[in-house]
Amino acid sequence: MNDFDFNTYLKTRQNLINGRLNTIFAALDPQRELICAMTHSLMAGGKRLRPILCLAAFEACFRDTSEPLLPDESPAMPAACALEMIHTYSLIHDDLPAMDNDDLRRGVPTCHRAFSESSAILAGDGLLTHAFQILAQPESLFAVYPDSQVRLEIVAIISDAAGVNGMVEGQILDMIAQSSSETVPSLELLTRIHTLKTERMIRASVLAGAVSAGADKTMRDRLIIYAEKTGLAFQIVDDILDVEGDPKEMGKTAGSDLGNHKMTFPSIMGLGASKKYAHDLIQEAVKALDLFEPKKALPLKAIAEYILSRKG
Amino acid sequence: MNDFDFNTYLKTRQNLINGRLNTIFAALDPQRELICAMTHSLMAGGKRLRPILCLAAFEACFRDTSEPLLPDESPAMPAACALEMIHTYSLIHDDLPAMDNDDLRRGVPTCHRAFSESSAILAGDGLLTHAFQILAQPESLFAVYPDSQVRLEIVAIISDAAGVNGMVEGQILDMIAQSSSETVPSLELLTRIHTLKTERMIRASVLAGAVSAGADKTMRDRLIIYAEKTGLAFQIVDDILDVEGDPKEMGKTAGSDLGNHKMTFPSIMGLGASKKYAHDLIQEAVKALDLFEPKKALPLKAIAEYILSRKG
Repeated sequence: MNDFDFNTYLKTRQNLINGRLNTIFAALDPQRELICAMTHSLMAGGKRLRPILCLAAFEACFRDTSEPLLPDESPAMPAACALEMIHTYSLIHDDLPAMDNDDLRRGVPTCHRAFSESSAILAGDGLLTHAFQILAQPESLFAVYPDSQVRLEIVAIISDAAGVNGMVEGQILDMIAQSSSETVPSLELLTRIHTLKTERMIRASVLAGAVSAGADKTMRDRLIIYAEKTGLAFQIVDDILDVEGDPKEMGKTAGSDLGNHKMTFPSIMGLGASKKYAHDLIQEAVKALDLFEPKKALPLKAIAEYILSRKG
Repeated sequence: MNDFDFNTYLKTRQNLINGRLNTIFAALDPQRELICAMTHSLMAGGKRLRPILCLAAFEACFRDTSEPLLPDESPAMPAACALEMIHTYSLIHDDLPAMDNDDLRRGVPTCHRAFSESSAILAGDGLLTHAFQILAQPESLFAVYPDSQVRLEIVAIISDAAGVNGMVEGQILDMIAQSSSETVPSLELLTRIHTLKTERMIRASVLAGAVSAGADKTMRDRLIIYAEKTGLAFQIVDDILDVEGDPKEMGKTAGSDLGNHKMTFPSIMGLGASKKYAHDLIQEAVKALDLFEPKKALPLKAIAEYILSRKG
């Protein structure tokens, strides 16, 4: 098991996903303003956490084959790309002047800064819509993909997590909490916002990988626990990094939450308790993986540990 | 054939669709800011043209049954609702200050006026995402729906028409044409913008109805011609109404295109020629229906004629 090198794994998967996203957008006349605005944000070098989780969950659930499955032949790849496109759309819309009004994202100007506000709104709309197009019609872009029954199930999983009972609701609750003078900061409200805003899409990522592999209910249930714990830990670490992170590694300004008077885990429970909370959650996430064959679950375990230790 | 009363037909279908949309949103805790903002725009009394076209195309293509199919048992209803939700999301985003900056829509304040700009952006995002949720997972809300293969095909049709090769591209081209001093008004550019912005979703509406009925390629091809002609005519009539329409019937201010220096069919080809063009297109649309059993195609024919004669 010691021959697993997480940095190599991460780099390889990031390159693979970036290659696939490039292929998708090369098919779309990259000269167009809309496509330029979409790729500006999509290809600005994110961590690709959601697609990597999707591919890793697929590998953990996929039944033994004599030949190891090459990652670029993973039937989970269309879902992986769709998840990153939806994540990027949410960043573009969250950064808008009417929302968080951010100037920098992933180390480059935000979409509305580099283009215009209307182009950024439409780039987000385009990424969200095209993600469902990729899921429904992967044939021309991917050599391998799940059958139509599974693809429809993935559309259901992702539209549920990204929509009115997930990410979009989390963002509006976040907006209301920030703008209302009546907001009473509480761990309960903060956890609710982040569960909706972040954890639901992390959960959808591992579930999309799992159903692509034909995972049974026991496997899915374990992955849901894994996603709940890592999803919340991810946000706690994000808040910690905003207090003590290196702006160069984060691609955005440290301390910006403090400036925005944003509710954060360190501001509610203190820095030390936040670190312990994130640590405990990651331990529970790793424990949920004990159902899987250890070798096949290694990437999921390493991703959980990376979420805790990351610097940006 | 003379016993077909279009006004009754329109009213019945509108009520049916409104009832279904109400059911969808009643399941979503209507107290939430997000759901209030979504239903504010969705339930403000639109014509429901796209869902009605979807249901009418279904009826034209559905093979004979001894019992007439009740419209509220149409398997095309989930697609009909999804189409209206996506249409409403596009209106909400088009009305935003960064886009057309409109104050009035469907006779009530635009979403960002009634709520806030951030809530309007998120209400649009929520409607778009939830439309795909309805298509993928209609089981809990609809008694009748197409099988999963057909539902996935509808996701593909709608995400293609609404996305980067359809409505979203049309809107960005419209924005660029309006904001750039280098825009040379031309019938070609105007037609291109409206084909992408309006006609593609009209086409998706009849196709979604057709595939829900298991229509063959010949039927689909005829419906595509019908949609191309009515879709363009719809936009020409919209431009004509902006010059000479009654603001009360339109739910928005007449002459606003003129104030915005917007390219319109009357401004490029003149009012008389625009009227003749719309009239000819509707004749061609009606002609494309001659493949279908006359009685079953009556609603589609009446809708085409209504598009030409409408006052708002």
